[in-house]
Amino acid sequence: MAGNIFGDLFRVVTFGESHGPAMGCVIDGCPAGLELSVDDIRQELVRRRPGQSSENCAGANCAAASSARNEADEPEILSGLFEGKTLGTPIAILVRNSDCKESEYENLRDVFRPGHADAGWQAKFGIRDHRGGGRSSGRETLCRVAAGAVAKKFLAGYGIHISSWVSAIAGQDVCLSADKAQPDNADVDAMLKTIRAEGDSAGGMVSCLVRGVPKGLGEPVFDKLDARLAGAMLSVGAVKGIEFGAGFAAACMKGSENNDAGMTNNAGGVLGGISTGQDIEFKTAFKPVPSIAQPQKALNANGGIVDLTINGRHDICIAPRAVPVVEAMTALVLADLVLLQRSNRISVLSEL
Amino acid sequence: MAGNIFGDLFRVVTFGESHGPAMGCVIDGCPAGLELSVDDIRQELVRRRPGQSSENCAGANCAAASSARNEADEPEILSGLFEGKTLGTPIAILVRNSDCKESEYENLRDVFRPGHADAGWQAKFGIRDHRGGGRSSGRETLCRVAAGAVAKKFLAGYGIHISSWVSAIAGQDVCLSADKAQPDNADVDAMLKTIRAEGDSAGGMVSCLVRGVPKGLGEPVFDKLDARLAGAMLSVGAVKGIEFGAGFAAACMKGSENNDAGMTNNAGGVLGGISTGQDIEFKTAFKPVPSIAQPQKALNANGGIVDLTINGRHDICIAPRAVPVVEAMTALVLADLVLLQRSNRISVLSEL
Amino acid sequence: MAGNIFGDLFRVVTFGESHGPAMGCVIDGCPAGLELSVDDIRQELVRRRPGQSSENCAGANCAAASSARNEADEPEILSGLFEGKTLGTPIAILVRNSDCKESEYENLRDVFRPGHADAGWQAKFGIRDHRGGGRSSGRETLCRVAAGAVAKKFLAGYGIHISSWVSAIAGQDVCLSADKAQPDNADVDAMLKTIRAEGDSAGGMVSCLVRGVPKGLGEPVFDKLDARLAGAMLSVGAVKGIEFGAGFAAACMKGSENNDAGMTNNAGGVLGGISTGQDIEFKTAFKPVPSIAQPQKALNANGGIVDLTINGRHDICIAPRAVPVVEAMTALVLADLVLLQRSNRISVLSEL
Amino acid sequence: MAGNIFGDLFRVVTFGESHGPAMGCVIDGCPAGLELSVDDIRQELVRRRPGQSSENCAGANCAAASSARNEADEPEILSGLFEGKTLGTPIAILVRNSDCKESEYENLRDVFRPGHADAGWQAKFGIRDHRGGGRSSGRETLCRVAAGAVAKKFLAGYGIHISSWVSAIAGQDVCLSADKAQPDNADVDAMLKTIRAEGDSAGGMVSCLVRGVPKGLGEPVFDKLDARLAGAMLSVGAVKGIEFGAGFAAACMKGSENNDAGMTNNAGGVLGGISTGQDIEFKTAFKPVPSIAQPQKALNANGGIVDLTINGRHDICIAPRAVPVVEAMTALVLADLVLLQRSNRISVLSEL
Repeated sequence: MAGNIFGDLFRVVTFGESHGPAMGCVIDGCPAGLELSVDDIRQELVRRRPGQSSENCAGANCAAASSARNEADEPEILSGLFEGKTLGTPIAILVRNSDCKESEYENLRDVFRPGHADAGWQAKFGIRDHRGGGRSSGRETLCRVAAGAVAKKFLAGYGIHISSWVSAIAGQDVCLSADKAQPDNADVDAMLKTIRAEGDSAGGMVSCLVRGVPKGLGEPVFDKLDARLAGAMLSVGAVKGIEFGAGFAAACMKGSENNDAGMTNNAGGVLGGISTGQDIEFKTAFKPVPSIAQPQKALNANGGIVDLTINGRHDICIAPRAVPVVEAMTALVLADLVLLQRSNRISVLSEL
Repeated sequence: MAGNIFGDLFRVVTFGESHGPAMGCVIDGCPAGLELSVDDIRQELVRRRPGQSSENCAGANCAAASSARNEADEPEILSGLFEGKTLGTPIAILVRNSDCKESEYENLRDVFRPGHADAGWQAKFGIRDHRGGGRSSGRETLCRVAAGAVAKKFLAGYGIHISSWVSAIAGQDVCLSADKAQPDNADVDAMLKTIRAEGDSAGGMVSCLVRGVPKGLGEPVFDKLDARLAGAMLSVGAVKGIEFGAGFAAACMKGSENNDAGMTNNAGGVLGGISTGQDIEFKTAFKPVPSIAQPQKALNANGGIVDLTINGRHDICIAPRAVPVVEAMTALVLADLVLLQRSNRISVLSEL
Repeated sequence: MAGNIFGDLFRVVTFGESHGPAMGCVIDGCPAGLELSVDDIRQELVRRRPGQSSENCAGANCAAASSARNEADEPEILSGLFEGKTLGTPIAILVRNSDCKESEYENLRDVFRPGHADAGWQAKFGIRDHRGGGRSSGRETLCRVAAGAVAKKFLAGYGIHISSWVSAIAGQDVCLSADKAQPDNADVDAMLKTIRAEGDSAGGMVSCLVRGVPKGLGEPVFDKLDARLAGAMLSVGAVKGIEFGAGFAAACMKGSENNDAGMTNNAGGVLGGISTGQDIEFKTAFKPVPSIAQPQKALNANGGIVDLTINGRHDICIAPRAVPVVEAMTALVLADLVLLQRSNRISVLSEL
Repeated sequence: MAGNIFGDLFRVVTFGESHGPAMGCVIDGCPAGLELSVDDIRQELVRRRPGQSSENCAGANCAAASSARNEADEPEILSGLFEGKTLGTPIAILVRNSDCKESEYENLRDVFRPGHADAGWQAKFGIRDHRGGGRSSGRETLCRVAAGAVAKKFLAGYGIHISSWVSAIAGQDVCLSADKAQPDNADVDAMLKTIRAEGDSAGGMVSCLVRGVPKGLGEPVFDKLDARLAGAMLSVGAVKGIEFGAGFAAACMKGSENNDAGMTNNAGGVLGGISTGQDIEFKTAFKPVPSIAQPQKALNANGGIVDLTINGRHDICIAPRAVPVVEAMTALVLADLVLLQRSNRISVLSEL
């Protein structure tokens, strides 16, 4: 209820503050018998690390900070695994946070950064960890990616595969590699370079395509497949919108145009909240990173307005690093719906 | 888990098939002491009735069907109320379905209507009620509106007020009345008339504005305020997209533009998933009603393709009738988050 | 969260106050394809009706009240059923309450009956329906029996069968019929007659035996099979204790005696919270009905002590009527665990 | 759903296998602003350590094993704490397992210990960690005690205090110290010594008393206070029964005897599932430790019967070490119900 647990049957709890001792997650409900290794987790975590593009990083000693974080993102599996297979018991994954200079954040103790959750957290809890956003830091998504890596492994067994990519930055479409699995990084870097030079940041779009989803996934009424995905995507801090298939364009169409016939997939693979067997397609809109190099005006705890210059490293555009997060959340939603689907029909004892 | 229960503390279960004996809902968790009457429910149900606009209705004996439904939508409160106040026990609300000609739907027993959930339900459950879509019928939203009426009453006590309106039909903006509470119906009817004449249907947009939300609502990480609202909106069958504040436009902005300063509300009243104290603003995209007067090709249970003409009444555009549904789902989300918020801080015994 | 929803996958919500318009339940999660009829519900409801034993009834116009209630317990299935089979959608069951003389209860408006929940409800909600206990009335168990009837039908498909019986009244063991399915009613009536003559009431024991439970049911750690059953049984108002297998006697044993070898079932069919494949056996202790014919002292809303004589019919011993309730709750627990069990192992797509 | 998450609002997930890398828990829902330190956790963990009584330990190098475990039970708080207070974010607590000789357990890889969950786990998951019982080991209760320590701290703020003690061993009552907070350890050791000498083990009783519970805790119908406590207690592996207040004796009473008047507390502080404001009193029955020094017959994976001698240390009677576990589970139940209680009445905005 307190918002840190996701899913019903394939259930994940995440924990950790950006500058506390550690980040981690516990997966309760991953079926027994799944082959899993720490490498499965590690390879996904690498994809969301900062500093992968030299152009997507701003702020004081950016490189240093990145590399520090790189060291920190080493996962350890604490439970749920036995001789290379899942036990059907909770899978706990731990990632230690690297040491950080607390002093670097002291000026934010009583100041609420524009576009961040700082003021809301203070109002909600009456206390907050101001260091790097604490629990509201984007670093929390590390735990989702770790859990998502397990969900992806589980889904692969059913032939379900998820791929996401940056489809636009600051309103400009991104050229894609042939397999759609990766954007053209040179293209992305060029866009970021300009914005970085302005001491600014940029919004972006992340697209997602899911192949191999069987017909019939998604629970009717309140837990529709697209409802679950929308809830999952909007739970990622910077996301401000989502659309499935034709999405907002469908609102401008007539029925005769929108009803899928033949080759179109205006429905994005979901009708009435249930998978149609076609590819699932959706797009998510990410707002620009609110932390920018330019000096800004900010509210403080006393309701006053102060001048604020944000130190520490931050991204120019979050979209590139959000790609594995979008995939992870999609995987967690689908893994949960796959398990839920098992209970919708009369089975025989042998299938219990 | 089976998808018919919504919320955590202000919890609602809905039941009923379009052409079964009755529709209804049970609210578990509405606090004790709330003044409530059957009129509170009735006045919301009236807003979603079909046939309110003569232009928003197509199909055989449209008027007759509408009026029949009008009679049917009389709510009865079965429990949870005592001498005009809620008891803190489950509030059950029942609405009987009017009799319908089953024969009218016989041709759909083994045919899957294009753009509907028919095929998905068959794949999922191996059995379905083909009469008017059964459980997947838009009629299910009647139960949400009934439950939402109770949530609205609850929220009004905190000074939280929700208003939605049709902001566009088939891509054309709708003129609004001054208070934004209602679209210009003459304008709407004019748009619908053209589409109806073509034997077609249209998509539309519904906007929502929530005033009086205190700062601090929304649970961090997975149960963010906007995540909950997105999940709720996409759980409405025809919705294909949602955006908060600047939404998709934010993905095209730079940080210096998007960070709210002064009068803007690009965040739509939500930062990091927590309410900022500003108005909550979002837009939802509704696809065109898939049932159209024109003959269509459809799949049948044997995988064959058949000619299909859909009988029975259906709407030209669902947006006008979806307005109270959007408000109801918003109310259910906020009522739940209001109750959840109570448990976030240490309280004193007297506040238990 | 508000306590009126039971189960995780085979989920039930009950509603209704003793003297409100109706009682009922909604089952969300019963798999599709189960053959079900209103007779399946009716035959279980008949088993818990009052006035089945002329000796187990006290108070003014007892017979009249009973017969009135008999008329009232006619179930109606409002949803979830299509052509004799479950749809996989919510199954709503409604039972209307018969009219009652409100005046009969007026003297209880501000008086808290000894041994009842009256004072607790007033403290909890600040409002209560004083007529016949309102929501805290034993009549609420009618809804559990209705839902349990569906769960029993579901379990029968797996060869799982539940039987309960009164094993003792006021400390005296009850002779049983050969098949243990029924106590010797003549024996029971003889015991009740004496107590009734004293204007008193009596406690009793209800035993339960479940045959055909496959090995492996029950979720480790917090949702153990016996933990679920214990929670379910103690949720029945008058139950004050439960024991599995050797139960309290096991606390007096040595390991060499208690470890099952060969023919014993000291574990009661559960080890470490997981079914062993042996019969599940447990006993529940019911306290005496607190409403007695003798005049009593009672607290009133002002904290004063008043003389109280309870009018209206009440049972001498609740155990006989609790038998179908114990079976129903057992069925709801097992149905839920059967569905949960499906998600514990890697399956193949065809089993989704 | 997979059984490793406890509670609704004050929610705990535990993880870890007995001989895996670590044990731990994550608490999601502890309100912000609670003063907490690692010492609060440590002092509770010390109470459940093995080897506290030299007489309550059997098996090869008992002392060594104990001390090894002692080293291992050092808790680390990984998140949720900032400058000595809870943040309202997940509190993760980690305890590393000490190294163990795997070889010591190799003979149990394909053998199911009598009276243990081994066979059930194998049937359920098709895979298990045979080393020391893996996830089904009593060592899992360490995580409950750690989480319970936080719940106790939370409850202390409301003046709610829990105390448990060993009230009987192998059927003999234990003399208590004056304040009932501790059994007479000399008395306990004397009992254990005899049984140990026989190479056997013993069952026992643990009593619990909760002072300071306000009137009105417990959710009606399915989440009654005693239902929650019963479910919590039976979730402790060795518990076979529970009774509240007069308990099983009440089943032998008449209403006129059982209805509390004046000084008695036959209800054990709970009526209709809601706290009465009197002390909450219950007793739990623990079966004898199934692992005994005597050679036993056991089933193996092939269905054969083999001779088994259990190596490694094990307790003579689990009751003494179960005392802090009973307190911890009671604290977790009450903390959850305290938070749930906050949502039962209309409040004012300032109380959100």
